[in-house]
This record gives sequence, structure tokens and C-alpha cells, in this order.
Amino acid sequence: MEKTATPLKAAPEDNSETEFRFSRNELIQKFETVRAFTETITDPLEIEDYVIQVRENASPAKWHLAHTTWFFETFLLEKELEDYDPIHPQYSYLFNSYYLQTGVPHCRARRGNISRPTVKQVFEYRKSINEHVVDLIKDATDEQYEKWGPIIEIGIHHEQQHQELLMTDLKYMFSQNPLDPVYKNVDRPKARSIPEISWIGFEEGVYEVGHDGKGFGYDNEFPRHKTYIHDFELASRLVTNGEYLEFMEAGTYSEPKWWLDEGFSTIRDEGWKAPLHWRKVDGEWYQFTLSGVVKIDLNDPVTHVSYFEADAYARWKGYRLPTEQEWEVAAESMEVEGNFADAGYLQPAALQSEKAGLQQMFGEAWQWTQSSYAPYPGYRPLPGALGEYNGKFMCNQYVLRGGSCATSESHFRKTYRNFFHANERWQFTGIRLAK
Amino acid sequence: MEKTATPLKAAPEDNSETEFRFSRNELIQKFETVRAFTETITDPLEIEDYVIQVRENASPAKWHLAHTTWFFETFLLEKELEDYDPIHPQYSYLFNSYYLQTGVPHCRARRGNISRPTVKQVFEYRKSINEHVVDLIKDATDEQYEKWGPIIEIGIHHEQQHQELLMTDLKYMFSQNPLDPVYKNVDRPKARSIPEISWIGFEEGVYEVGHDGKGFGYDNEFPRHKTYIHDFELASRLVTNGEYLEFMEAGTYSEPKWWLDEGFSTIRDEGWKAPLHWRKVDGEWYQFTLSGVVKIDLNDPVTHVSYFEADAYARWKGYRLPTEQEWEVAAESMEVEGNFADAGYLQPAALQSEKAGLQQMFGEAWQWTQSSYAPYPGYRPLPGALGEYNGKFMCNQYVLRGGSCATSESHFRKTYRNFFHANERWQFTGIRLAK
Amino acid sequence: MEKTATPLKAAPEDNSETEFRFSRNELIQKFETVRAFTETITDPLEIEDYVIQVRENASPAKWHLAHTTWFFETFLLEKELEDYDPIHPQYSYLFNSYYLQTGVPHCRARRGNISRPTVKQVFEYRKSINEHVVDLIKDATDEQYEKWGPIIEIGIHHEQQHQELLMTDLKYMFSQNPLDPVYKNVDRPKARSIPEISWIGFEEGVYEVGHDGKGFGYDNEFPRHKTYIHDFELASRLVTNGEYLEFMEAGTYSEPKWWLDEGFSTIRDEGWKAPLHWRKVDGEWYQFTLSGVVKIDLNDPVTHVSYFEADAYARWKGYRLPTEQEWEVAAESMEVEGNFADAGYLQPAALQSEKAGLQQMFGEAWQWTQSSYAPYPGYRPLPGALGEYNGKFMCNQYVLRGGSCATSESHFRKTYRNFFHANERWQFTGIRLAK
Amino acid sequence: MEKTATPLKAAPEDNSETEFRFSRNELIQKFETVRAFTETITDPLEIEDYVIQVRENASPAKWHLAHTTWFFETFLLEKELEDYDPIHPQYSYLFNSYYLQTGVPHCRARRGNISRPTVKQVFEYRKSINEHVVDLIKDATDEQYEKWGPIIEIGIHHEQQHQELLMTDLKYMFSQNPLDPVYKNVDRPKARSIPEISWIGFEEGVYEVGHDGKGFGYDNEFPRHKTYIHDFELASRLVTNGEYLEFMEAGTYSEPKWWLDEGFSTIRDEGWKAPLHWRKVDGEWYQFTLSGVVKIDLNDPVTHVSYFEADAYARWKGYRLPTEQEWEVAAESMEVEGNFADAGYLQPAALQSEKAGLQQMFGEAWQWTQSSYAPYPGYRPLPGALGEYNGKFMCNQYVLRGGSCATSESHFRKTYRNFFHANERWQFTGIRLAK
Ligand SMILES: [Fe+3]
Ligand SMILES: [Fe+3]
Ligand SMILES: [Fe+3]
Ligand SMILES: [Fe+3]
Repeated sequence: MEKTATPLKAAPEDNSETEFRFSRNELIQKFETVRAFTETITDPLEIEDYVIQVRENASPAKWHLAHTTWFFETFLLEKELEDYDPIHPQYSYLFNSYYLQTGVPHCRARRGNISRPTVKQVFEYRKSINEHVVDLIKDATDEQYEKWGPIIEIGIHHEQQHQELLMTDLKYMFSQNPLDPVYKNVDRPKARSIPEISWIGFEEGVYEVGHDGKGFGYDNEFPRHKTYIHDFELASRLVTNGEYLEFMEAGTYSEPKWWLDEGFSTIRDEGWKAPLHWRKVDGEWYQFTLSGVVKIDLNDPVTHVSYFEADAYARWKGYRLPTEQEWEVAAESMEVEGNFADAGYLQPAALQSEKAGLQQMFGEAWQWTQSSYAPYPGYRPLPGALGEYNGKFMCNQYVLRGGSCATSESHFRKTYRNFFHANERWQFTGIRLAK
Repeated sequence: MEKTATPLKAAPEDNSETEFRFSRNELIQKFETVRAFTETITDPLEIEDYVIQVRENASPAKWHLAHTTWFFETFLLEKELEDYDPIHPQYSYLFNSYYLQTGVPHCRARRGNISRPTVKQVFEYRKSINEHVVDLIKDATDEQYEKWGPIIEIGIHHEQQHQELLMTDLKYMFSQNPLDPVYKNVDRPKARSIPEISWIGFEEGVYEVGHDGKGFGYDNEFPRHKTYIHDFELASRLVTNGEYLEFMEAGTYSEPKWWLDEGFSTIRDEGWKAPLHWRKVDGEWYQFTLSGVVKIDLNDPVTHVSYFEADAYARWKGYRLPTEQEWEVAAESMEVEGNFADAGYLQPAALQSEKAGLQQMFGEAWQWTQSSYAPYPGYRPLPGALGEYNGKFMCNQYVLRGGSCATSESHFRKTYRNFFHANERWQFTGIRLAK
Repeated sequence: MEKTATPLKAAPEDNSETEFRFSRNELIQKFETVRAFTETITDPLEIEDYVIQVRENASPAKWHLAHTTWFFETFLLEKELEDYDPIHPQYSYLFNSYYLQTGVPHCRARRGNISRPTVKQVFEYRKSINEHVVDLIKDATDEQYEKWGPIIEIGIHHEQQHQELLMTDLKYMFSQNPLDPVYKNVDRPKARSIPEISWIGFEEGVYEVGHDGKGFGYDNEFPRHKTYIHDFELASRLVTNGEYLEFMEAGTYSEPKWWLDEGFSTIRDEGWKAPLHWRKVDGEWYQFTLSGVVKIDLNDPVTHVSYFEADAYARWKGYRLPTEQEWEVAAESMEVEGNFADAGYLQPAALQSEKAGLQQMFGEAWQWTQSSYAPYPGYRPLPGALGEYNGKFMCNQYVLRGGSCATSESHFRKTYRNFFHANERWQFTGIRLAK
Repeated sequence: MEKTATPLKAAPEDNSETEFRFSRNELIQKFETVRAFTETITDPLEIEDYVIQVRENASPAKWHLAHTTWFFETFLLEKELEDYDPIHPQYSYLFNSYYLQTGVPHCRARRGNISRPTVKQVFEYRKSINEHVVDLIKDATDEQYEKWGPIIEIGIHHEQQHQELLMTDLKYMFSQNPLDPVYKNVDRPKARSIPEISWIGFEEGVYEVGHDGKGFGYDNEFPRHKTYIHDFELASRLVTNGEYLEFMEAGTYSEPKWWLDEGFSTIRDEGWKAPLHWRKVDGEWYQFTLSGVVKIDLNDPVTHVSYFEADAYARWKGYRLPTEQEWEVAAESMEVEGNFADAGYLQPAALQSEKAGLQQMFGEAWQWTQSSYAPYPGYRPLPGALGEYNGKFMCNQYVLRGGSCATSESHFRKTYRNFFHANERWQFTGIRLAK
């Protein structure tokens, strides 16, 4: 899914006052590292794997490679350079996602109808734009650098966001192949056992949430603002496969009383009986992973569940999902560490620690919150095409927090608001309970 | 649409402590008045008008008549009386809306496939249950009355809720008939001119919202709780047809930049160019009303707009929709008065007053808020079938506040939370701006 | 379904040469008898039963009553009388089926959205047009009578065709009601046992088929023409419920090998396991009839089967369906007699006779042939609106022969070509085998 | 589309009596030539071009390559050889088209979801099976050769049938790419002008049609049988682009009177205004071809029209389409010559000749007939999986005759019955008029 609606920091006055936060060398290194990581992700692929689209909101790998490049070409090169000559006149049509001020985009559902440009041509496109951008950083005047630096930083975060989609889209695409292709074999840490859930309490009062302006943020994280929070408790860790299996085996998937009205229609219409990528073979549950089909590990965090399933699980247990404000308040004092994309496990891993307090708050699997994705009080749309649709996805989606095993740690921050429709399951989504 | 998910007061301990708020005579009078008002609504109808269902979420008049009766039969007579012998064994199947603990309901989309029972039989059904209920009130022991009174009160509110649906469903059904049938001719007050919108400000701080436990409330209004609200201003009155026409004539219906992403797909897929029930004849705008097709009055509040249209209108004007908390805080000190169903205008009417301050807060047209329909902090589902699905509609719907010209004033309260999907337009829905 | 594409005799030169075949009195009597029979069919109905449309190709009774009247108004009164003042200006829009030269018709799928005009108004419409037509017959000059007589004759046959649809549409509508309403109680003859199928052979050669110009015919029956037929044999009687039950119990509904490719997708997508109107209750098969729900009688002809089911049954038995030419050649020397609508049984009845030779060739249930509905060699479209779409249904439909228990005997002739899509089952359709 | 329902000669007794018609060397050469031609067709492709499926009935090139190989593996190697060890256990699932007796096939609509096996692996699969088959021919006993020869011959014709689909599927896939990829540049013969249509007459009488048993034939061409044909005339050549353009410019695409009922709904629902692959640029008509986008040549035969369009064109001109029997009778005495795939033009070409008599009867574009695809009298399904579904497509499809510019001449014969649904246009389909 392509829904980076809001890739700009919302406090323009700050930009004008303070110097851009990275030196040219730092930025070039950041740029090259992130651009290269995208190609590390596609490294194990065959050419055939780049081309296919198996459903509307999972784009072909080739499209991700080109679209993240198009972003730099469109918002930096074309916009800032006079006489810029685009590499191919149709690319801006083919690799636009949804920015209407930059032209009508090619239909999202048809990204897999396009065998050309070839994969080779797309890599050449990447290389050419990469060189252009690096030259630009080097050759810019100080004034230009102050203006272009932030655009390049957005482009870097945009690319990191697509890296996660690239991995989940590839996973979904491979999962549709009866040959069960293996993307990459990986060893993940295991746990003999994991502790029961305990509850961490927080006190009622006025809190502040939202981005404080230090470092990068999308505009949907702004402004930092006060919110009233009631007494609440968060579960110490994510729900496991073993716990979710109990829920399934209690017959809940055929009992409407545990489900939201739209949730029950969804599981009935789709025939869902388990999380995405699970399958039962000879009475045993397995799941398709990027490292092949493996037996369900009861201690691993459950993942690939919809909001509907997360919500029903919580109701069945007698609890509920947290709000995004509760989650952020709880996370505030914690250090960000966990199983992110950098660990390379390609799947959430079992909790290793016996420590007290909140665990698995970051990485592993995005945690569904009960918060509908909505503008913060005082949220302001930004001018221009980049900010054109800042709020356009703020409808009928739910906020997820915490990042996942497919999120780069350098892309993540505690105020990060991910969002998906309640029925989506192809991301690494999981469950943390609240009460 | 039938979505009274939550018809129970959420604070059961209060019930046990305090005496039921109405005497037997008061309750009988209330019951008979409300039951009779339903039949006043259907009075102008031909038998043929009772039977038809023109789309899934607009039920036949006959069904509303029977379903509101079924409610008393199911939750009072069948549940409370030993040896109760139902009037017809299939009615509990045919006239159940969605209460799964009382049995599988007949498919909502097929309510118009049922020519039998006849209208006459349904009125007999009503009469028989009415008599039974009144006898029950009279003959109950005090202890029984304390238990049954609240159930009957819920049934009364349930019926009032259906009265509004009955009127809007009839309006929708007649609007599909090329003969443009007139339900009832009514004179509405007109205004020569109305004042420009002014802005009423409110100060940042911690406020309380939600039902305070005095008088009747659905459980989604509970508990009363603190919330943090930032400085905001509300528009002094509803948006008019004239103002909305300017928005239409600015070409907004074909410009994606004003719309939520799902909003623009909706208007494009549905071919919307104006509010529901509007039509252009020889270059002039008319609207279908229950009193026939009339020319658009520029001073009347605009109605039959979706959330998407309300949101786009606000964005185009540079404003936004209020949150439901803001609306409730603003309404708190006001007296409830306005054009409700009791006035019998069958349509929102132009503002008559030149008074300062907030106008048209109640009655006229439900005011879309930007708040997704969600549980209040501490919301607790109630046990049993009546509360079975208390939260099941709390997903992908938006809260509307203020009542409409089809709401009975005695049904309304300031904490009332109505809710519909963002694409729905067949209710009397309107727009109040905030900033 | 409304598909009377071709209601004109195709040999106009004959019309000019010969005198119209009925005297004025005969025509008036025919007209009044047939018009009255329509109202005999609706006699057992409640007003509510007239209004409902439960699927696109089953129209409300009210529509049939009005449309058959519209036919006389449009093709006789409006077309032939100067200064004719239509009874209601919108009726020609509402009750047109598909004649585009007479104006755009109201959408077929929305015939059930129209509560007005009321049933009473429709009966008044019928009465008024009836009087007008009878007066016209009486007052016409001889020349006018020669011109108008054939139009009225077509209108009479058109009405008879709709009488059959009226009965099957009512049956379908009632069948969707969980209350299982009884249209009319009727006693049907039963048979203790019926003879095994025997085979009647016909010899290869050139035959003539098609209407010979004596008496009334639709233009799709013309011209009479030569055809080459190979040796074939027809089964002596229709397939019975008992025989069809063996087919079902052999598991054929889940075995693709017995089915046409589109047939198997249809039964799988629709979940068909038995003919329409059949249901299994406590291990026993019942069927919904216009006289209520009755146990399957094994000796009755099977009915309400699609072409797909007829074809699969034949393949499973090792036989095939006849072509329409074979059927007509076989019928040629036989006398038309059988259980038509006139008998009033409302359902096919078991074979009473032990006679040799072909039985049940007429009445009972329309016999699917393997012939695609196509123009006869030399078929010529007629000028004007009545013949506007003479061939427009000659695509993807199959011809049925022989009439049914809902066909009036006076409407039937051996050259009659009925036609429906291969997946339709709501008519009285049955199976005769060939080899 | 994959609909080779009937790849077996229907007269098994002939097989047993006569010797198989090719020597081993002839068969090996035929096999290798045809197998190699498939790879000639894919030669200009990039790997990315092999993988994509842009709509359900156009399969990826990779699938065609594998499926035609699977055919030999399944019906020859697996069936005839004891202990045959399949190259990959899943291939028989992935590359089966619809033969249910050989196992459940992979869903046709999802052939484009499968990036693996890679193109390279598929070519290895082809090579391995090729060698196996050639060895088998060489090493077979005489008795085995008599049995296996005909199976291999079927496999060869099956492959040739898929070569045509491969070309039209590639054309359709490329046509969906906004970059308008060029498959191969080709020069086609042009004509300065072409003669007006003249009419060739045939006399009424009993004729024989169907395969006479000499040479290869699919079973739907059998048995040869008598048919009665009335006087008719065929147009001397195919309808041209210029003539079809007149039809379009007469406004026919918005006038229902020229169209079959289902035809008009189709063009309205699909928004068709011209043949497939046509586009209007700056007021001029162009068409997408395998050699790029070119201006419409008015003298070329029109192609990529549906049955609905062919039928409407004929009606508009006052003519009709021929029956397949008429076409076959007219073709009987002619020599097969024309622009087949062997010419390599990749598109129908303008008529070069000024000769009298029927022209363009073979090659160029498949000629829609008005004949519904149905079994010939006496048609007999064959035993076993190959003949399992001989008749399963004989429903709601229309027969096309004459071959096209994508048909191999060695695959074609005058009795060949191609068939497609009335709405299909992605094949090279054209129009010949009859009267
Ligand atoms: Fe993006
Ligand atoms: Fe209700
Ligand atoms: Fe009709
Ligand atoms: Fe095939």
C-alpha cells in the first residue's frame, strides 16, 4: 500500500530558524546507505519476482524501486532545477503514486500490467538519479543546500517507508505461489518459554503527545499537544501465537458476539479462520514466512492480524486495545530498542527477556490501537504538492504504533503514526492489550 | 438504517439505587403517545407504500411498524413472562434487526421481499402488543414495575429512533418514483435573508462530556468523563443551500484536492454532483421533499450531504468540522429548542432569528463531526441480548450531533451520539463549521 | 422476464390478401376473455402482493397488469388515434418494457421501487383502456378493422404471454417469503405409478418446420423452411422427480464431468444442489408450489430446472436433449392436448395414461432443446416499433418447446418458440430426452 | 483463452484400421519444427514480458510455454510410461488448464501471480520434455508408435493453437502498457485501393459438412453429415477498416436499434466506441499492433471486433453473418491460401488481388458466423481425460471460420471450428457478410 500522505515536517517556521541538521557528508552517506539498502532487499530476487502484482495494494518490487526514485526526480530535480530533462517522459506518469498536483498517476491496480521498463532499466534509472542527487548536494550553494537538504531527508524517509512495503508485498506475492518460494533463509532466536502477561499502570491526567520538533517527523505527528488520559494499564508484552491459537480454538471465528459488526462480515465474507499466512496441514498449524513455510512457534508474537481480529481477541480476553495516546505516553520514557529490519529476522521473534516492565514496545509487529486515524488538534496542511494530500487518508483507518521487524530503526520514532484499514493483514501487525 | 446498538443506560448501579423515574400513568401515557405517533407518520400512506424496500439500508414502513413492536414482544413479553405465547412464531425471525442472541434475523437486504404479513395484520400485531404492555404496566407488582419500566422506556426510545428512520426511508422510497409522490403538503417558515456566519469562541482546558446519569441515555453516552479541549470557535449557524451552491459552482466536485481520498472515489463512482435529492431542471436547482419537488431555497440549511461533502466543504472554506467533544461543550449551557419532528416541517427551515450566539444547534439537520464513533474511556458493555452488541458499530462511522427535523424533541438530549458511515446521505444531515 | 421480442406475423403480404380471421364479435369476446383471465390470476392476491419485485427478471404483478394495458394504449390508441390523450403522461415511461422506439423505458430492475400508481389506479387504467378498445372495435370502419384487428390480436397474445410470467413471478416472489404463503389450494391428479420411458423413432430426411401461415404466429416462427434431420428417437414422456432425484443422489452436482463448463460454474457459484423451489426438511425433499409446500411426488415431471441441469441429466443418462427441429417434426402429427393453464393445476401433473407413443408433449413443463435461439433462414425483421427488436434476443438463449401448466392453451401452437438463458429456472421448465 | 476442448479425432475405429499417417522421421521433424516455432515467437521478449497476466483469459507467455509442455508430459509420458518421474511434482497443478481428470488445475485468473518457476526453468522444462519425446518416438515398438503417434500429433496441434493465443495474449499485454512496446517491426503489403464487395451465390439443397476423416481433425469437426442449406450469397471479401469506420461515424455505437440486446448492454457497460486496440489521437484513428502504434489503413480488413459488432455492422448494412455451414460449403472447392502466421505480418493485410470470386477466405482474420457452437448430429464424446470435456464449451459461444494471421497454415483446415464468446475481441476476428 502506498499511503505516505504526509511526508513533511509541519512546523515551517522552525526550518527557517535553525540550520538543516546534517552536514553534506552526513546527508550523502545517509542517502547512499538507504538507497543501497533497498537494493539489498531486492538482491535475492529473480527478474521474474520484480514484475508481478497480486492484488491492488501490493505493488511490484520494480514499481517500488522506480517510485522511490521518481520521488527524488519529481520533488527535487524537476522542481528545483531549471531545464531538467527527465530520464523518460512517461516515468512521471508510471511511477507517481497519488500526487495529483504532479500529474495524473497510472492506475494503482494496474502496476503489474507493465513489463517495461525492464528491471535493468529501472536499476539504471536509480543509478542515474542517485548520481544526480549526490552531485547536487556537493554542488549546491549554502542557500540551496538549506532548501534541498530537507527535501532529500523526506525522500530518504519515503524510501524507508517503501522498504517495509517492499518486504511485505514480496512476502504476499510469494505466499500466493503454490511452490512456496524461499526469499532468504534466516535463523531467528527462539525462547523456551515466555512469562505470563503482567500489567503496567499509568495515572490519569493531562499529558503531552506528538512530535516535539527535534529531528525528523511527518506532519501528521504535529503539533505536540495536550491530551487528557484516564487511568490505564498496558500488557507487558505482545500477544503470542499460542495465546491467539487458544482464541481460535475457542470457536470465536464463528461467534458474532466477539466481533465488530463489520469485522464479522469481513471474516465471514473472506472465509478467515486464522491470521494471514497461516495454514493447517495434517492437523498442525504452519505459517508462510520469507524463510519458507515453518511450524507455528507458540512463543512468537502473533502477526498478520487485522484490526478486527486484534479487537475481537481483546474483547474475548475481557480487555481492549490501547489508544494511540496511551501507547505514546507509555513509550515516552523508554529507550527505542527491539527487533527492527536491521536485525534481518524477517519475522517477529519470541521475547528473550525476563525483565519487568513493558517489553516488545518497538519493532517485532505494529501494534493496532483503537484510535481512528485523525488530525491532531491544530494540524495544518502544508502548501504545495508534497503536502497536497496531507489529510486525505484521515478517514476509516486505524493507527498502529511501535514499528515492526520490517521497519528500519533509523526510520522509526516514538511519535510515528502508521495507519491501515481495519481489514488489512499483509503488514506485520500484532496485538498489545490494554485495560 | 437500523443501528441502535446500545439502548441501555450504562450505569446499572444507579438503577438499583434510585426509583424508576416515571409513575405508571406517566409511563402508559408516554408509551401510548409514542406508539400513536408512529401511526400518525404512516397515516398519509397507501397500502402499497408500506411494502417496498428500495435499497439495503432503507427498510419498508411495514417493517418499522412490526420491528418496533417486536422489540416490546421480545425484550419484555417473551423474556419476562412465563408461558408467553407469541402472536406468530415467525415474527421474531422476520422483524428482528440484528440481535443475534434472540435468534438469527431475516436478511436486511430482503425486507422488501415479504408481501405478507399484510399491513392490516401488522397493525393488528401492534394493537395486540400495545394492549398487552399496558396491561402489564397496570398489573405489575412494584418490584416488577421497577424492572419492566426501564425496558419499556428503552422500547419507547427505540421506537422514536425508528420514527426518524421511517421518515427518511419513506422519503428515499418516494424519491425513487418518477411520479414524485407527495407525502404531505406542509408550509415551512421562510426567511428573506439570513445573517452571515459569525464565530463563537471557547477556551482551552479540561472539560467534562458524556451523560451525567440524570434522565435516559444510551450506553454509548456513558460514562461522563474528562477531556482536554484546545481553543476553538464554532460557526454561529448551519451552512445554507446558497453557500453550498457556491461550493458546487466552484467546480469542487471534480477537483480531488478538496476531498478525502475515499471521498473523491465515492463521488466519482456514484456520480455525485450535488446533495442527495437535488436535481437540476432547465438550469435551476430543485429538491425532492416529502412535500413534493420544490425549488432550492438558498436560505435553508443544506441537508442530505455525506461526511465527505461536509468535510470537503469545510476544507474549501478554510475551516474544519468540529469534534463531538467541542460540539457538546458548546451546547452545554444552551437550552434545547429548534425545529424537531414535533414542528412537522419535514425539512430543515431557514433561520428566523437575528440573535447573537450559536443558532440552529438543535433540530433542523444532524451536524457531522470529525469524530470517529468510538467508545468513551471506561465504556462498559452490558450483559444480555439488549446490550449484546453495544460496541459493534464502533468502527468506520462518524458521530453526528444535534438532532434533525425528523427527530422527536422528547427523544433528544445534548449528549446524544448519532452515527453513520461517511458516505451516507439519506438522513437529514447538515454542516456546522469550526476553526 | 419480459422478452416478447417478436410479436408480429412475419408474412405481411398474406395480411393484405386475406381477410382478418375473426369477426368483430369474436374479437371482442377473445379480448374480454383474455383480459379477464389476467384478473382471475390476480384475484387471490392481497394488495401487498402486487407491488414487490424480488429479482430483476421477475416483475411485480402490478407491473404486468399495467404493461399489458400499456401495450394496447401504445400500439393501438396512441398510434392509431389522432388526438389521443393518454391516461397518465408517465405511464408510457413506467410500463414500457424495452421498446426503444416508443421512448426510454423505466429500468427493469427498479419496477419494484414504485409504490404508485396504486393497485386500484392500475385496475382503473385497465378498465378504461378495455372500454376504449372495445368501442374502437365496434366503431371502426371496415378498413380500420382490417388494420386494427391484427394489432389487437397481437396484444391478446402478448397478454397471454405475460399471464404465464405473472404466475411464475408470483410463485418466485411468494417462495422468498419465510411464511410460505399459499396462493391457491388446488387438487392435482396423482398416479400410482408411471410407465418406464420408451423410445419413439423418426427417420432421416428433409423436413419442413416453421409456421405455415394459418392462424397467428410470432415472426420468429417464420418462414416455414426445409431442414435436414438425421435419425433420432424421442423419449415417450418427461423426466420425473423420481428419476431426477436419482441423478442428484448420484452426487452429480459436485462432479464437473457431467456439466457444461458454464453449467458447473453456475451451480457452484449459486450453490445449487436441486431444482429451484426444492428444499430438504428432516431428510425429506419438499417443493414450494403455488398451493403451498408439498412433499416431492416422484411421479410428477421434474420442473424448475435450468438448461444446464437438463443437459447434465441427459449426459448422465447417456442421452441428449432434442433439437427444436426434432421436437417440431415429432409433434407435427399430434393433437395438442395436455395440462395447460386452463386446467388450473398450477404445477405439472403425473402422467395418467398408459398409451403408447409420445406423451406429455404439450403443457406440463417447457421442454429445453439443445437449440440456441437463432433466426430461421430467411427470417425478416418487420418495420416499426412493434418489430423493432425482432431479433434482439437471438443470442445466448435456448429454445424451449411444448408449453407448460402456466401457458394458456389458446396461446399455444406447435411452432411456438419460447427461449430463456441457460441458467434460468423460475419458469416451469422440464426435460425430455432424445438419442 | 484456453478452450481446446476437443483435441481428438472422433472416429476411433478409423485409427485402428489405418496406419498412423506419419513416419517416425516425419513426426520428429514436425514435432521439433512446431516446438521451435513457439520459441521463435517468444524470441523478441524480455524476461519481464513472460510473466504478466493482464486479464483472466490472457495467460502469461511463460504459462503457454509450460502448459504446451505439460500436455506432452501428462498425456504421453505420465500416462504411457511406467515409473515416469515428473520433472517437478507441482507442474502438473500449475500448468494444467482445465483437465479435471488429471487433477485440479491452478486457478486461471491467477496464472500471473506466479513468478516461479523462472523463465529459464521453463525453457529447461521444455528442453527436457522435448528430448524425452523424441527418444520415445525413436525407441517405441511399432505397436507403441501406432498408439503414441496420434497423441503426439494432438500435442502438436494443441501447441499450434496455443501459439495463436500466445501472440494475441502478448499483443493484449503490451497494449496495456502506456509505453506502447514494440514486439517486432514488420513490413506489411499495402493496397492503393481495393475492389467493392461483390456477391457470390450458392444454391439451395442438401450438402455435406464436417471432417471427412482424411488427415487430422478435432472431434468437434466430426462426423461429416448432411445439412440443408437455402439459397445464399457471400461477400467476396472481408469488411475493411474504411467500411467499418463509416459504420462508427454513422453514430451506431449509441443507437440500440442496430444491436442485439446483450450487445448493446456490452458496448454501453464497456464504453466501446471502436474495435479493440483502436485509439483516436488528435482526431485521427490509430491502432496498436505488435509492430507499434500505426495509423488505421482503410484498406486493411477490420479486426478485433466482437460478435456483437460484427452482427451490428451486418444489420446496419442490411445483410447478415453467414452460418458456419454456409461458410464451409462455400470454402469446399477453394484452395487454402492466405496470410497465415507463416507470413509473419502479425496483422491482417489489405487484399492484393483483383480476381473474381471469394477472396480472403483463409488467414487474415477469423470470420464470425451466426452459428452458436453446438455438437454436430451424431457427435460422440470420447473416453478418457483427453476427451473428458469434449462438449463442455458448447454453450453460449459462436463459431468462427477461416483462420487468421496468427494461425499456422499447417494447423488449419477448412472444417476447423474456432469458437469464442460474443463479447470477445482480443483475437484477430473479422467480418464477412452474407445475404
Ligand atoms: Fe510513496
Ligand atoms: Fe431497531
Ligand atoms: Fe411485454
Ligand atoms: Fe491447452
